[in-house]
Amino acid sequence: MATKKDDRSQDGRKKKEQRKRNRPDAPLRDVLRVPEGERLDLTAYDASATPAGPAGKAAGLAATAALAPRLANLQERLYASSTAGDRRRLLLVLQGMDTSGKGGTVKHVIGLFNPSGCRIRAFKAPTPEERDHPFLWRITKALPQPGEIGIFDRSHYEDVLIARVRALAPRSELGRRYDQINRFEKSLADDGVTVVKVFLHLSYEEQRNRLLERLDNPEKHWKFNAGDIEERSVWPAYREAYEIALERCTTDEAPWYVVPADRKWYRNWAISTLLLEHLEALDPTYPPGDFDVEECRRRLLAT
Amino acid sequence: MATKKDDRSQDGRKKKEQRKRNRPDAPLRDVLRVPEGERLDLTAYDASATPAGPAGKAAGLAATAALAPRLANLQERLYASSTAGDRRRLLLVLQGMDTSGKGGTVKHVIGLFNPSGCRIRAFKAPTPEERDHPFLWRITKALPQPGEIGIFDRSHYEDVLIARVRALAPRSELGRRYDQINRFEKSLADDGVTVVKVFLHLSYEEQRNRLLERLDNPEKHWKFNAGDIEERSVWPAYREAYEIALERCTTDEAPWYVVPADRKWYRNWAISTLLLEHLEALDPTYPPGDFDVEECRRRLLAT
Repeated sequence: MATKKDDRSQDGRKKKEQRKRNRPDAPLRDVLRVPEGERLDLTAYDASATPAGPAGKAAGLAATAALAPRLANLQERLYASSTAGDRRRLLLVLQGMDTSGKGGTVKHVIGLFNPSGCRIRAFKAPTPEERDHPFLWRITKALPQPGEIGIFDRSHYEDVLIARVRALAPRSELGRRYDQINRFEKSLADDGVTVVKVFLHLSYEEQRNRLLERLDNPEKHWKFNAGDIEERSVWPAYREAYEIALERCTTDEAPWYVVPADRKWYRNWAISTLLLEHLEALDPTYPPGDFDVEECRRRLLAT
Repeated sequence: MATKKDDRSQDGRKKKEQRKRNRPDAPLRDVLRVPEGERLDLTAYDASATPAGPAGKAAGLAATAALAPRLANLQERLYASSTAGDRRRLLLVLQGMDTSGKGGTVKHVIGLFNPSGCRIRAFKAPTPEERDHPFLWRITKALPQPGEIGIFDRSHYEDVLIARVRALAPRSELGRRYDQINRFEKSLADDGVTVVKVFLHLSYEEQRNRLLERLDNPEKHWKFNAGDIEERSVWPAYREAYEIALERCTTDEAPWYVVPADRKWYRNWAISTLLLEHLEALDPTYPPGDFDVEECRRRLLAT
């Protein structure tokens, strides 16, 4: 039950968060994070904006390339640390409409990492076996192991997105899933998984451009699905489903980030930067050896 | 039973293969391939050689970087083709002594591909569950799907390598495994899997250098295992086990390649080039769309 005091403290919190976001040196995670306990109106977000980003495409490409060695080094430290029992790992969840750039993010951002430490899973429509299990079953099987970076191209959120838009489950069942997801993600956090959830925010117009590009290039026809045109007719229903999912499932343990995705260079820079900030916060360290260096050197030189 | 005629025809085949290898424009796969039906003497192979390679390190790094776009394009075509039912895929098997560069190959060569189409598996000592199954069981579960590039960092060959050196199975059982492996790889080839098996040929001296480097750098201590020094005492037994495995399991369906691995730049160039040659031989093509382009464009522009 909301009281005046609650309203006031919520207002205070809102203002505090806004100030945090607007500081010129604010981490990108503060700038792009979906605030908790507020209504989310995606129409108020400009999909072609470049919040806190480099000045333009050339600068953006250069800035992203410059992040590569830092990302690779942090990943190596995370993996190295896991060999000494550190259970921490990172999970990047990518959601967005068709052509919003989930695949492009894997190629250009995850391509900056050492592939041996990445566990990538693209979720399609569930198989009959998957449908016979609770919706989180297939998700649990695809989680990153300690030291790894996991990437979900689509995820358990499909079960409150397309499932809602296409009424693939009873409304009461859908309603329960948000809490199930929050409990699930809380348990991941408790087990050392840093969950970074990115909504690739694409405009209706830019999706049309990208679909036309695919049509115009025979080498991209394999990516084109005539059903993608159909889906555009329910665009507002998808936007609403995203708004509800992001609102209800942005938590301290697993926040949602809205990344404007009309400009590919910004998308790549922003996601690289979000990953960098989260990995730097983990600050994994190379574990010390459990052997006597001098003795090993002597023995080795004797061989 | 060998007759004089067999000997002569085998001699003829040998000479023909040698001529093939020595042609200045010979594909690298002909240069590095382990010939069938001959004794293999690894001591006759120089681990620091650069057969058919670029003139030096700088040229080698540049040549490898220049292959990247061609590799990525072929990979995309392979994947695209699989969406139209093409079952073909590639499996790179990496074997070699500790520090020979299996992990480095994944980082630097596989890092040139789109990570979403790569299925990487590092095989460690078998788990209790894996030991309860035939040795090919865990291998079968890790195979690339159609359109993918699979990478095995170690493989089923451990079951005739360390298993032989450390007598982890009865000799009679070991003896049967070579044929089992050949039948298994033949069945893979029949199912559309191009198997590329690479032995990273490292010298005893270069292994010492690399282990010393790990000892001298605290950031590499996590990679160091004091047991690796122990293993050096059975180096000749490993060499023999490799010679037998490569001799008996180099087949037309799944040939072995010996890649000199003392120079990392050559190793990366050579494996990139082997992959390129195999992917070019597959020559996968973008599948045509199964939709009416003009009609789709009209419908799309109406949205």
